[in-house]
Amino acid sequence: MSMMVAPPGLSNVVVADTKVGDVNGDEGFYQYRQYSAIDLATSRSFEEVWHLFVHGRLPDPGELADFRDTVRALRTIPPELTPLLRTVALAGGERQLLAGLRTMLSATALTRRSLPMWDAGPEQRIADALAVAAVTPTILSALHRIRTGNDPLAPREDLSTAENWLYCLSGNEPEPRAARAIEQYMIATIDHGFNASTFTGRVIASTGADVVSAVCGALGAFSGPLHGGAPDRALDALDEISGVGDAAIWAKNQLSQRSRIMGFGHAVYRTTDPRSDMLRDIAIGLGGPLVEFAVQVEKDVVAVLAEAYPDRNLYANVEFYAGVVMDRCGVPRTMFTPTFAVSRVVGWCANILEQAEDRKIIRPSARYVGPPVM
Amino acid sequence: MSMMVAPPGLSNVVVADTKVGDVNGDEGFYQYRQYSAIDLATSRSFEEVWHLFVHGRLPDPGELADFRDTVRALRTIPPELTPLLRTVALAGGERQLLAGLRTMLSATALTRRSLPMWDAGPEQRIADALAVAAVTPTILSALHRIRTGNDPLAPREDLSTAENWLYCLSGNEPEPRAARAIEQYMIATIDHGFNASTFTGRVIASTGADVVSAVCGALGAFSGPLHGGAPDRALDALDEISGVGDAAIWAKNQLSQRSRIMGFGHAVYRTTDPRSDMLRDIAIGLGGPLVEFAVQVEKDVVAVLAEAYPDRNLYANVEFYAGVVMDRCGVPRTMFTPTFAVSRVVGWCANILEQAEDRKIIRPSARYVGPPVM
Repeated sequence: MSMMVAPPGLSNVVVADTKVGDVNGDEGFYQYRQYSAIDLATSRSFEEVWHLFVHGRLPDPGELADFRDTVRALRTIPPELTPLLRTVALAGGERQLLAGLRTMLSATALTRRSLPMWDAGPEQRIADALAVAAVTPTILSALHRIRTGNDPLAPREDLSTAENWLYCLSGNEPEPRAARAIEQYMIATIDHGFNASTFTGRVIASTGADVVSAVCGALGAFSGPLHGGAPDRALDALDEISGVGDAAIWAKNQLSQRSRIMGFGHAVYRTTDPRSDMLRDIAIGLGGPLVEFAVQVEKDVVAVLAEAYPDRNLYANVEFYAGVVMDRCGVPRTMFTPTFAVSRVVGWCANILEQAEDRKIIRPSARYVGPPVM
Repeated sequence: MSMMVAPPGLSNVVVADTKVGDVNGDEGFYQYRQYSAIDLATSRSFEEVWHLFVHGRLPDPGELADFRDTVRALRTIPPELTPLLRTVALAGGERQLLAGLRTMLSATALTRRSLPMWDAGPEQRIADALAVAAVTPTILSALHRIRTGNDPLAPREDLSTAENWLYCLSGNEPEPRAARAIEQYMIATIDHGFNASTFTGRVIASTGADVVSAVCGALGAFSGPLHGGAPDRALDALDEISGVGDAAIWAKNQLSQRSRIMGFGHAVYRTTDPRSDMLRDIAIGLGGPLVEFAVQVEKDVVAVLAEAYPDRNLYANVEFYAGVVMDRCGVPRTMFTPTFAVSRVVGWCANILEQAEDRKIIRPSARYVGPPVM
């Protein structure tokens, strides 16, 4: 039995073939199926792109209407589980909404009697995957509202996923401009290559487990500090810079203290992050002092980084303008990362469904390096 | 950026160095740290081996006494979460105890305010890991008792982990012989190389997430039909054979119908499974008609398999006698796999703690094989 030693962290090791999407870090381009993700975010609705992920193609108008009906019907938290909400919401701190989401999603596996994916046919698997993604914003907004002293709101059948998300957070019907901005952010963050959470979901799916098991695992990886994608940290940095008064001085201080500059740099992109470019345009369209400040900070920080690391091409990443856009659309800062989760769960599910078709367990090896056997 | 294409399922690809343990499938040997796992199961207590996993060495008597005190104090379900138990227990079917366990463990992350492992120091990480493993049997037995119409029992401070597990299931103090048999089973199933659940836990840990996130993910992979380790299926097979009346005829029927023969064969062992050999001895020590029947069935089925697949060395695996031993010790069949989870969570935690020391995210790549970009 010949063993192959992989590079640390499996970096650059291809472990699966996928038709879900791809990232080209050198060219600053990423795709969903065969489409530019940014083009989709610019021109399509969240539900159209969700359909693309689950069914492999953009829907025609009839398919889209059916799909909207299907996912709207799956938004409601199963009534057997509503007694859990208050305890889960109040047991955790405000930074623990993802753990609360995982707890509630985990419980949905009980009421749906969700089948191991290998026992479920493709239709059942898709239904389970849609249910997980559709109920995610309902759970998160309910936990948020209970934590802030309000009653959870029932999802509104007449609203789109993005509109309904903003409505369930605030209780107000959102302005169309804000709803569309959030929708574009959500579309642009559904998927992004084989990140650690997506990979986790696929490893679990490869055992034949149910969709909920795979999503709960993905959520755990998503919560890790190395996973990235916490737009609230970037906005915290903007607050700090506002206090210092000069972004260049702040950035140089950060570098001299060897602190990370949140919102800048990316593991994959060697150009500007295409999501950041899109979100900057959206932010400028929304306007306001925070946006003007952020645009100036970006310029100053990129200049400092270019001087400090001339070879590294460090630019604003998706986190930087995501926080600005969400803030301008009235999303509370504690709900920035949960908003990201609402979209990313769609991408996880597509990856999980694809993995379930490949009936091979992902099971690598380890090398024992401890003391010899006694 | 050069890419390396890994074999399907990462089979035989070394992705980590470990001091936790190893499996030598050719020689029918597996180890915990530098010790034979079977030797440990034969001569040590569960708590001694748990200490070995967490702290890297067997405890001296003083350390063992402290360790027992520490883990006993962590057995209790946090009182803020007890309101969840009944809803979680009754929402699911009897085969969904693992999803119920995951839901409750996930909720413990809320009350402990469990820190991402990278923000927690080593002591905090160990405390979190001990808490997860110590509360697992309490949650599982509580869910079982509620489902069967009984009140959950408070863990007993004067009992060992294995004794307390049997006590919390039945409400009766176990016979010493039964408690020791279950303890030996539990020690022998704490860890077994880089299986899919262990790997899942390590991928999540590599993001710097908290211990609970990593264990919840591991539990999902553990629940998958390809993961293996469901001793109830092997006992179901014994029931079927008892109905047929002849194990050889039953086994030939299974083979002709291309059905799996549960309880036989293993992905790694090319000899007898050392756990099976140990559990057979334990079963014979316990005695009784079921044991005699199982010993005969094993002989008959191994003979049929040897004739059908002369090159494949197919023997009884850990599942076969595990079910027999647990049945003889009064564990209800629905609690066979949960008993396995009670021990395996200790192994996951040791792997997760080891992974957290290596500050490198596990993030492989995928190869896009869909249609070209439009």
